[in-house]
Amino acid sequence: MRARMHRLAGLGFISCFTGLCFSQPLPLTSAEVLATAPPSDWRKLHPERTLYMELPAGRVVIEFSPGFAPEGVANIRAMVKARYFDGLSIVRSQDNYVVQWGGAAPGRSRGAAKATVPAEFTRLISPSSVFTALPDPDTYAAHAGFIDGFPAARDTAGGDEWLVHCYGMVGIGRDDAPDSGDGSELYVVTGQAPRHLDRNITLVGRVVAGMELLSAMPRGTGALGFYTKPEQRTTIREVRLAADVPAAQRSPLEVMRTDSASFGRWIESRRNRQEPWFHSPAGRIDVCNIPVPVRSVRR
Amino acid sequence: MRARMHRLAGLGFISCFTGLCFSQPLPLTSAEVLATAPPSDWRKLHPERTLYMELPAGRVVIEFSPGFAPEGVANIRAMVKARYFDGLSIVRSQDNYVVQWGGAAPGRSRGAAKATVPAEFTRLISPSSVFTALPDPDTYAAHAGFIDGFPAARDTAGGDEWLVHCYGMVGIGRDDAPDSGDGSELYVVTGQAPRHLDRNITLVGRVVAGMELLSAMPRGTGALGFYTKPEQRTTIREVRLAADVPAAQRSPLEVMRTDSASFGRWIESRRNRQEPWFHSPAGRIDVCNIPVPVRSVRR
Repeated sequence: MRARMHRLAGLGFISCFTGLCFSQPLPLTSAEVLATAPPSDWRKLHPERTLYMELPAGRVVIEFSPGFAPEGVANIRAMVKARYFDGLSIVRSQDNYVVQWGGAAPGRSRGAAKATVPAEFTRLISPSSVFTALPDPDTYAAHAGFIDGFPAARDTAGGDEWLVHCYGMVGIGRDDAPDSGDGSELYVVTGQAPRHLDRNITLVGRVVAGMELLSAMPRGTGALGFYTKPEQRTTIREVRLAADVPAAQRSPLEVMRTDSASFGRWIESRRNRQEPWFHSPAGRIDVCNIPVPVRSVRR
Repeated sequence: MRARMHRLAGLGFISCFTGLCFSQPLPLTSAEVLATAPPSDWRKLHPERTLYMELPAGRVVIEFSPGFAPEGVANIRAMVKARYFDGLSIVRSQDNYVVQWGGAAPGRSRGAAKATVPAEFTRLISPSSVFTALPDPDTYAAHAGFIDGFPAARDTAGGDEWLVHCYGMVGIGRDDAPDSGDGSELYVVTGQAPRHLDRNITLVGRVVAGMELLSAMPRGTGALGFYTKPEQRTTIREVRLAADVPAAQRSPLEVMRTDSASFGRWIESRRNRQEPWFHSPAGRIDVCNIPVPVRSVRR
């Protein structure tokens, strides 16, 4: 005889078997995970690690990952402090790949930024880093999961770990030499995760709000999706560290902690969808199909 | 002593060892694979299996996959013949997910289309189908690869195969019931491959040209990315089978045969990038990171 199950409001189910009923946890839908996550499973963005890029259509918010790219992030911060990016443009939109902005601007102050920064493609596995590993097979890495709120991968045998190129991840454009990027030209992933870029280029963070302002940019018609005419480019009004913006003008965002119990439930809700629309839950999940939840807590 | 290698123009290298030189095949770059693929490794689109969706900004070309969804494709063809889609709209653009068009239009002729079509989520492995399998691990399926020009997967134990949700794949929107889609509302994948949709919904083909016209649509601000105001929608000028368009107005496209030697080299060129920019070739490739090459052969 099959037990009969009744879904409760997002918290579990009542299971009745031969007349005896009891409640037990149920795999939650994604919406239920978000609705029931306790405040302690969310964290505020740190204003010193948060960048606002103001476009004519609105604000793009980027969370930096200085733990993985301390030198790259420091260089970008220095240029932002010098207002290097203000008035520069979105220069590239290549379909199913990346949107890119900034670039060399001779004569413009770069503040305390260095001419180049070393490659920060991987780091040694940090004893203090918490790796929320996925049990699912990953095509590109021995182990995939999350570290400090970012999608990441690990090679335990090799002893290193790195951020991975999921949708919305932001990196430092470079030429052929590994250390040729200085942080003045940045890109964001706007299509299928280009995981072949992993360990080949420095990732510095993730777009946590306003992604749709970048991803829907008209595609450039030049080689690699570069715009060929100045009027095709969108001008960046200004780029600021959140810490340098008055508190009342900051975006009150919170990110789900990737080492929390709620995030574990979030992963499971996406691995096996509970919504009635699904007839064959996948039973597996790719790291890039688990966007880290972000919410606005404006009061 | 390390052999010294000299790259030739895309065809191989000369290897010199202790003064003796000989040529041997070299892994090619993606550009070299395209440049050297013989005409026999390309196929023309069949006009009866090709759809043109004319938008104000240009033409979107869709290749049907009737081998996987005979009933779904037949229903869409019937509606196209009845000019069902002409004047309908793009109704949804959800960031990192799908763009959707068409929908119920009461009073409009549907031609010979049925009210609903059965679910065509998988098919039995066809004895005649040629499966170009990838050796790389796939998160979602036992085996991933290509069949008849489309990204696909197989469960050899279960005896079935199916198309997979890579960027640009087109499917039939449905409600909760598996057979509730009739082909009047179609979607295309515009973000990270939503592989959890595999085996849950009917895929009917792939956008082979004009994808950038759909993927850059402004994102809808309603639930699930639906547009909330009529003026946000883009009107579809008309949808035609290529066979019903005068030959001179057809898009002269060719697709690389996925059972060809060139396609094998194409896969390898993407698994291990040969361009000097790359310092750590991935050594692995995801099925959705191998877009099937398309070229225009206008003379």
